[in-house]
Amino acid sequence: MNTVGRLFRVTTFGESHGPAIGCVIDGCPPGLALAPDDFDTDLARRATGRSRYTSQRREADEVEILSGVYEGRSTGTPIALLIRNVDPRSKDYGAIADQFRPAHADYAYWHKYGIRDPRGGGRSSARETTMRVAAGVVAKKWLAQRGVSVRGFLSQLGDIRPRGFDRDVIETNPFFWPCAEQVPELEEYMKVLHKSGDSVGARVDVVAEGVPPGWGEPVYGKLDAELAAALMGINAVKGVEIGDGFAVAAMKGTENRDEITAEGFLSNHAGGILGGISSGQPIRCSIALKPTSSIRLPGRSLDTSGAPVDVVTTGRHDPCVGIRATPIAEAMVALVLIDQALRHRAQCGDVGTVAPRVPGGAFPP
Amino acid sequence: MNTVGRLFRVTTFGESHGPAIGCVIDGCPPGLALAPDDFDTDLARRATGRSRYTSQRREADEVEILSGVYEGRSTGTPIALLIRNVDPRSKDYGAIADQFRPAHADYAYWHKYGIRDPRGGGRSSARETTMRVAAGVVAKKWLAQRGVSVRGFLSQLGDIRPRGFDRDVIETNPFFWPCAEQVPELEEYMKVLHKSGDSVGARVDVVAEGVPPGWGEPVYGKLDAELAAALMGINAVKGVEIGDGFAVAAMKGTENRDEITAEGFLSNHAGGILGGISSGQPIRCSIALKPTSSIRLPGRSLDTSGAPVDVVTTGRHDPCVGIRATPIAEAMVALVLIDQALRHRAQCGDVGTVAPRVPGGAFPP
Amino acid sequence: MNTVGRLFRVTTFGESHGPAIGCVIDGCPPGLALAPDDFDTDLARRATGRSRYTSQRREADEVEILSGVYEGRSTGTPIALLIRNVDPRSKDYGAIADQFRPAHADYAYWHKYGIRDPRGGGRSSARETTMRVAAGVVAKKWLAQRGVSVRGFLSQLGDIRPRGFDRDVIETNPFFWPCAEQVPELEEYMKVLHKSGDSVGARVDVVAEGVPPGWGEPVYGKLDAELAAALMGINAVKGVEIGDGFAVAAMKGTENRDEITAEGFLSNHAGGILGGISSGQPIRCSIALKPTSSIRLPGRSLDTSGAPVDVVTTGRHDPCVGIRATPIAEAMVALVLIDQALRHRAQCGDVGTVAPRVPGGAFPP
Amino acid sequence: MNTVGRLFRVTTFGESHGPAIGCVIDGCPPGLALAPDDFDTDLARRATGRSRYTSQRREADEVEILSGVYEGRSTGTPIALLIRNVDPRSKDYGAIADQFRPAHADYAYWHKYGIRDPRGGGRSSARETTMRVAAGVVAKKWLAQRGVSVRGFLSQLGDIRPRGFDRDVIETNPFFWPCAEQVPELEEYMKVLHKSGDSVGARVDVVAEGVPPGWGEPVYGKLDAELAAALMGINAVKGVEIGDGFAVAAMKGTENRDEITAEGFLSNHAGGILGGISSGQPIRCSIALKPTSSIRLPGRSLDTSGAPVDVVTTGRHDPCVGIRATPIAEAMVALVLIDQALRHRAQCGDVGTVAPRVPGGAFPP
Repeated sequence: MNTVGRLFRVTTFGESHGPAIGCVIDGCPPGLALAPDDFDTDLARRATGRSRYTSQRREADEVEILSGVYEGRSTGTPIALLIRNVDPRSKDYGAIADQFRPAHADYAYWHKYGIRDPRGGGRSSARETTMRVAAGVVAKKWLAQRGVSVRGFLSQLGDIRPRGFDRDVIETNPFFWPCAEQVPELEEYMKVLHKSGDSVGARVDVVAEGVPPGWGEPVYGKLDAELAAALMGINAVKGVEIGDGFAVAAMKGTENRDEITAEGFLSNHAGGILGGISSGQPIRCSIALKPTSSIRLPGRSLDTSGAPVDVVTTGRHDPCVGIRATPIAEAMVALVLIDQALRHRAQCGDVGTVAPRVPGGAFPP
Repeated sequence: MNTVGRLFRVTTFGESHGPAIGCVIDGCPPGLALAPDDFDTDLARRATGRSRYTSQRREADEVEILSGVYEGRSTGTPIALLIRNVDPRSKDYGAIADQFRPAHADYAYWHKYGIRDPRGGGRSSARETTMRVAAGVVAKKWLAQRGVSVRGFLSQLGDIRPRGFDRDVIETNPFFWPCAEQVPELEEYMKVLHKSGDSVGARVDVVAEGVPPGWGEPVYGKLDAELAAALMGINAVKGVEIGDGFAVAAMKGTENRDEITAEGFLSNHAGGILGGISSGQPIRCSIALKPTSSIRLPGRSLDTSGAPVDVVTTGRHDPCVGIRATPIAEAMVALVLIDQALRHRAQCGDVGTVAPRVPGGAFPP
Repeated sequence: MNTVGRLFRVTTFGESHGPAIGCVIDGCPPGLALAPDDFDTDLARRATGRSRYTSQRREADEVEILSGVYEGRSTGTPIALLIRNVDPRSKDYGAIADQFRPAHADYAYWHKYGIRDPRGGGRSSARETTMRVAAGVVAKKWLAQRGVSVRGFLSQLGDIRPRGFDRDVIETNPFFWPCAEQVPELEEYMKVLHKSGDSVGARVDVVAEGVPPGWGEPVYGKLDAELAAALMGINAVKGVEIGDGFAVAAMKGTENRDEITAEGFLSNHAGGILGGISSGQPIRCSIALKPTSSIRLPGRSLDTSGAPVDVVTTGRHDPCVGIRATPIAEAMVALVLIDQALRHRAQCGDVGTVAPRVPGGAFPP
Repeated sequence: MNTVGRLFRVTTFGESHGPAIGCVIDGCPPGLALAPDDFDTDLARRATGRSRYTSQRREADEVEILSGVYEGRSTGTPIALLIRNVDPRSKDYGAIADQFRPAHADYAYWHKYGIRDPRGGGRSSARETTMRVAAGVVAKKWLAQRGVSVRGFLSQLGDIRPRGFDRDVIETNPFFWPCAEQVPELEEYMKVLHKSGDSVGARVDVVAEGVPPGWGEPVYGKLDAELAAALMGINAVKGVEIGDGFAVAAMKGTENRDEITAEGFLSNHAGGILGGISSGQPIRCSIALKPTSSIRLPGRSLDTSGAPVDVVTTGRHDPCVGIRATPIAEAMVALVLIDQALRHRAQCGDVGTVAPRVPGGAFPP
């Protein structure tokens, strides 16, 4: 099950330290302009080695389009994308080839398959998410032509939360942080963290604007359900919220409901989704990412023979995987949206274009 | 997309006030003992009219097994279950047939399909979840034979949280509440709430014990991703957590990782899932449910012609839908687990039976 | 796997002698007019007891619409159809409950599931095809609105082949035979056959007219491939042809290719499908059905204990199942077409409406 | 829809004259030994340039394993295979870039997508089948470990049929022909055909031996239905038969049924499938392939502007595509079988291993 989507189907393959990673996008509408450099921006946003706060593995991440594009346009046939792995340092992993790193997938893969590729985490490595981002670029292009944008930002780093919100600031700092004045504080926090050898969790918010009402398939292919799956399936994610999320548990009905007037919705507690279907308001979702599991501080574990070991993870790792998760989360949201758009078009005849007036839909919500 | 599951596929149908609701379970292993009264307990746990804190609609919910069972055992062919709707009061809905109730699916269904069945919410009604619970009964029976249990409880009602935990208490009160001494307090809270005409949100926890390591399919069919979809797809759910959930955003790697010794895991922050695959520890997940949208207090909205209206929802509604969500959430978890178990058996040859020692796996986690 | 279709998904359930058979149609476009009596014509065409040449089991086949239709129109939610079994004579099957009837599914079901419902063939009975016909009615209605018709006829009965073709004759005789002058001959043939206790095979042709070019998904969801699956999956079918079918093996390229002029295609050897995609010409396909396996003449077999038995099938059986297969084959073709139409609309934006001029497309081909 | 299979899922990509073709195999059981040279034999059997009776395009067809294999064994993660296109001569196609070659997919692709890659037929080229053969190799290896073999042969070339059958002869001649004494006749036939500039159709039979009873999923995932889809989906195939195929239309029930004794089945008219499920007898299926559409003799057609043209196909083409279809058909049968085996294991607990005694199962049937 390495495929996501029902009509815009993305199948990824590849291991962290294998010869290549790649994906096949099946079901892309024909006629979409597509070139190798379309992928540059988002892959760079996701890439390691981009600042001292992320892993120092250098990923060139040059995308080769192997099929499905003719004279610069998608033909409707499968689009295969390939990226060669150029800087694996598998020797970093020799020491842990037979150990189960705590909080890693090692233990589970081993018990499931009876065999695993230990080099860099193999298939369970976040390296695989590169192809999600690449596929997401194709989805975003199609969505953008219909006025739909998908943007994310970091909304929590450890226990630090934004003190303000300026969407123009997000892409100007390596943290995808929406409040400029806090950036020095974050830099200092990360420096201390890195020195300590420990790691920290984070929270990412994603907002999709311009989605017309009507996308989403009740009852088991609901838009929020599929967003939840797509986002929870990102490495390290342990929680997903739509709209107000867990805060609703303590809310009253009169507080939580989004009243509607002729000028539009008066609020957006629902996060743009009602009954599993988009309402025309901005889609808001949030994810929580656990702290990086690969840390230098030793932890108790077992090796494959069952003997106790103290695991120390060397290699190049982000002290906070959540930071780079921002473009990945955007990509997953975009993949869900295009898929739902095509499903809606199949059943109902068009993708829907007229979003209602949404005064309650300011960014961020 | 009214089907959940890939190998144990459940397709539900029916509207709140239509002639019947039902489901088809396709892919059930043959030879499973199954009788109509197997459904009684869980349907009663979910049923309305069970206490004064839930809707007073009386649902007899007698399950008729239409196919797939011969001489008391499943034959491997589709199991169809049918429940006639016996107490619909559609006239309650006459007033709102052309109105979009705030926070309801009305608005989104209308914009998606251009037509909707307004009686009792039609397809978007929680009435549909009856069949999820019924299908979940079949899944639970199969799982139980392999030592896997799935149990839920209410872990928050408005801003009230359990002050203690006794699993034996959960089924002895109408709130699925794990702390006996608080039950009178909850009763009083609900009485006041009901009188006010308002509603409130809630939180439900579900724990699956006995799951062997190895269930779950990376990368896009991960166990946690599919749990997230299944749970987020329940009516009114706005958030899903696995293990420590959103708390991980503020945690350090040294706190969050579950160390392993020869005696087993030392903690279960991960909620029993690593890299999308079960680790053998108890699976822990939580959901947040928004307050019931149908309340007596008037709210501003539009009718289908775009004219402003004040909506007042009469009819019979739970002041807190979260309470009855407990058996629904259990059912969805069970449906995901059996599906993953069969998928694991397909690829790896058996369902896995030996769970590792899990001292970190006490209930509740 | 009791579901056919990807976007217009039909899941059937029910056994020959169980309480009911039914289906759930998921993904039907909203707004389609639908009433219980829409099913009458096609169900009567398929029904047993219609002439002395078919089984004398009387199937009232009254369709109850359980969901998905509101005020006479489809709502986009699942349409569940139910037919109660009213004339099962299960005692007819007592004798063969533990025997494997030669050429029947008994042997295979037993070895697959270790359990089977022997009453009337259980799930493997042609009784199940009633629901395919019912679902096909819905598909045909939608297709008809787009100018697409699907009609079948019997093109071989034993070694008798039509000597002429008049499409207006097909529905005027119980054989779906296109040549009026041969009908007395067929009646005589069937009388003798019935007296002999033996059965005979048949061939059915189906033609879909008005299909626009562009339906079909290369490479593994080709229109012809999906027609092949849908038709081969009908009980007793052992062969499927598209266009000229097996005759192409002996043809030259110059004979087989359909040349194109400004007036349209000059022939239709391809049966309306090129590269797995409709060409705008009529879709032509044929199936071969084996002789009814249930015959009164004793045959050697085993019982479930492995002991040799002489099996004699009493009960009420068609001496030629192929005759009633005509509406079933039409239904399966219609189900494939609507599914491909919706898939085409999803990817390419519309269902396509302009069929090219097709002088080579006369009926029959 | 470029994916075949539900549990052993093969997604192919690539165009005839693009940079590469490839596939992703998802769901392969872990632990299967796999090396690049495993593919050599079958790819050579399918390759062009192998004799003067096939296209002279030289396909080196070196398979690179990009993922899913670690230390020579499958890990359970996706296996990606890549073959670079090394000998495309796209200039051969310049003349027909804007023409619809009669009997080709050109016309249909154009009308579906509004864009097409004309170089060598693009995606509709038989070049794509290379990856089916490659994926089939993996399936065959797994099946072979369970005693299941899949072998094909040419059973008709134009109007020539085998006069004898010796399975050991099949792989000793370039025609996959089972009768040695006819090989010179075939060579002469092909020489004359090639000189004439015309092409001819063919028929291929495939037999799978060792399949245990129980594989196949009624009602819509029947083994024969899925074989029909897989085989009809091969380029140029226009007909599929299981067992006696179209001959059953003229048979009596007493002739057609396969009686069973304690020694096994007495015949195999059914082709090893009853009710859509394997019976333990050899699976027999046949396909008819139309004559190659690319021929040197001019044919009337249109160009994309609608103007009449005389199309002459130069380039390198097989005068009989049916010959090389033998390994492709084997691969498709193997892919269906492994998928059904895994599905059977999921639902029923094991793949089944004890085939019944089958005296009626001699090769060829």
